[in-house]
Amino acid sequence: MLSIEKYQQEFLDFLQNYSVEKEPKGLYAPINYILQLGGKRLRPVLALMTTDVFGGAYKKALNAALAIEVFHNFTLVHDDIMDDAPLRRGKSTVHEKWDVNTGILSGDAMLIMAYQLFEGYTPEVFKTLNQLFSKTALEVCEGQQYDVDFETRNDVTIPEYLKMIEYKTSVLVAAAMKMGAVIAGANKEDQEHIYEFGRNLGIAFQLQDDYLDAFGDPKTFGKQVGGDIIENKKTYLYLKALEFASKTDQERLVHLFNTNPSATDDKVTEVKQLFISTGSETATKQAVEVYTNRAFEVLEPLKVSENRKQLLRDFGNSLMRRNV
Amino acid sequence: MLSIEKYQQEFLDFLQNYSVEKEPKGLYAPINYILQLGGKRLRPVLALMTTDVFGGAYKKALNAALAIEVFHNFTLVHDDIMDDAPLRRGKSTVHEKWDVNTGILSGDAMLIMAYQLFEGYTPEVFKTLNQLFSKTALEVCEGQQYDVDFETRNDVTIPEYLKMIEYKTSVLVAAAMKMGAVIAGANKEDQEHIYEFGRNLGIAFQLQDDYLDAFGDPKTFGKQVGGDIIENKKTYLYLKALEFASKTDQERLVHLFNTNPSATDDKVTEVKQLFISTGSETATKQAVEVYTNRAFEVLEPLKVSENRKQLLRDFGNSLMRRNV
Repeated sequence: MLSIEKYQQEFLDFLQNYSVEKEPKGLYAPINYILQLGGKRLRPVLALMTTDVFGGAYKKALNAALAIEVFHNFTLVHDDIMDDAPLRRGKSTVHEKWDVNTGILSGDAMLIMAYQLFEGYTPEVFKTLNQLFSKTALEVCEGQQYDVDFETRNDVTIPEYLKMIEYKTSVLVAAAMKMGAVIAGANKEDQEHIYEFGRNLGIAFQLQDDYLDAFGDPKTFGKQVGGDIIENKKTYLYLKALEFASKTDQERLVHLFNTNPSATDDKVTEVKQLFISTGSETATKQAVEVYTNRAFEVLEPLKVSENRKQLLRDFGNSLMRRNV
Repeated sequence: MLSIEKYQQEFLDFLQNYSVEKEPKGLYAPINYILQLGGKRLRPVLALMTTDVFGGAYKKALNAALAIEVFHNFTLVHDDIMDDAPLRRGKSTVHEKWDVNTGILSGDAMLIMAYQLFEGYTPEVFKTLNQLFSKTALEVCEGQQYDVDFETRNDVTIPEYLKMIEYKTSVLVAAAMKMGAVIAGANKEDQEHIYEFGRNLGIAFQLQDDYLDAFGDPKTFGKQVGGDIIENKKTYLYLKALEFASKTDQERLVHLFNTNPSATDDKVTEVKQLFISTGSETATKQAVEVYTNRAFEVLEPLKVSENRKQLLRDFGNSLMRRNV
């Protein structure tokens, strides 16, 4: 087993050698650009680590890890078009630096290239990974569609919201880990357990993201604190606040989420105050903990040594303690 | 062996049972819409027919044939966004009927669904079909990028143009046929031969398309005759005309292809006249014949009976005699 930083470094070295300096440049240059933009490389690291946890060699999982990362970046390119986002990790998005058509076509190519990265595996493993990948990729599309649908709906329930973030975010984390287990030759039960670990951890991670967007430390949080509030995003914090609020507070919150003031400070302050006074802030922190603990519970029956389980717990805890 | 019409019918029945009445509707309704819009279903028919030619059972190829058709329709959805096209087969395009974001996301889902359609095959066949599919799909993206690049270039050569149409159109026809051969268990040489048959036939088909766009019969041609001329598309007819023309005619042609008159009749008439007087019209007809004959030559060494070869030739000839 390596340290998280070492898995990250191994993955980055592998990514560096994944040359897409091909013709036509108009198609491949944007792909290089987005893949080099950085990021935590959380999903590929989890795939490598899981392979080791189940007694495989993480190097065997590098291609699958890269497939996951290329796919993840494909979704960023297309989502950024749909959200009309100018920036990604502090740099221009692909459709801003080039144009929308380039973003569409280069994204399409990335989805195909992700599939190609499984071609180094034997037919049996190839098929297993491929099927898991397709199922997951389609769920991610469904999650994105639910996210779009929710923008214009005023009756989104908490279970619907949880399903949306599960599909949009956590199934890919879960699939990355299950792929590691498949490559290591883990038994079917353990494959399912580790998938459930990743799924619950992914939900906790996204709820934590919602929380930090409003209550993160401005000094360490990468994005603008309060961004979701400014954009009127119906996050877990918002939905829980609506659930808990008095009728007056409900109306005030709905009203605030229908405004787009040019000066946003007052709105952010008032909404955060409502998130706290309604108990939503606390409930969101609790939900992060509940899903993290569920993830840890799934580890119990796993047929691996206690210290390997502890590594997974440590990783989960470090994710949940993050303030970025 | 069945007749073309019977293969078409069998494929349409299979397509009808491919239900995508799933949630979220915002994602799947556009997919149903585009798949039901019609079309010649050329590629799936070729996949089924080729399976029979090599002694397989065409029913085994239905899933692969549908994968090819779903992929083809995915490219139409994304290309129509890139071309800002309002109509497809006389009906609204997906991004017109819904919006651009829907076109992007539903298209992405279709690409994934195409991959899923191979999942019914054994791991060995699955991997072979999948690799061929990914290679082909990426070439189609590259072809589309070349097409985009050519719009703003004035020095496109005939070989470059041929490579573009090969990638954008003919590799998918070739792959459809090779998949049929793989599913039938044909030997590797025959798989390559039939791929080459499809590739050459596909090029002939696209050159024929260029030809008919200008010289087709308005009564039977589905689209507006002269559409490519109105849109200043650098087709084979245009590039050959430039190659053959006198300096004066060259300049005139370049000039005409930099105009966008509101009344287009005069422009279409003059350009067609130049296509004829320069010899480009004849050269294009010849090129169609050359590529059709190359396709037929590749059939010679094929290890199948003469009457099955004749069926492939008949199909090729019927395509080349079409005026729609």
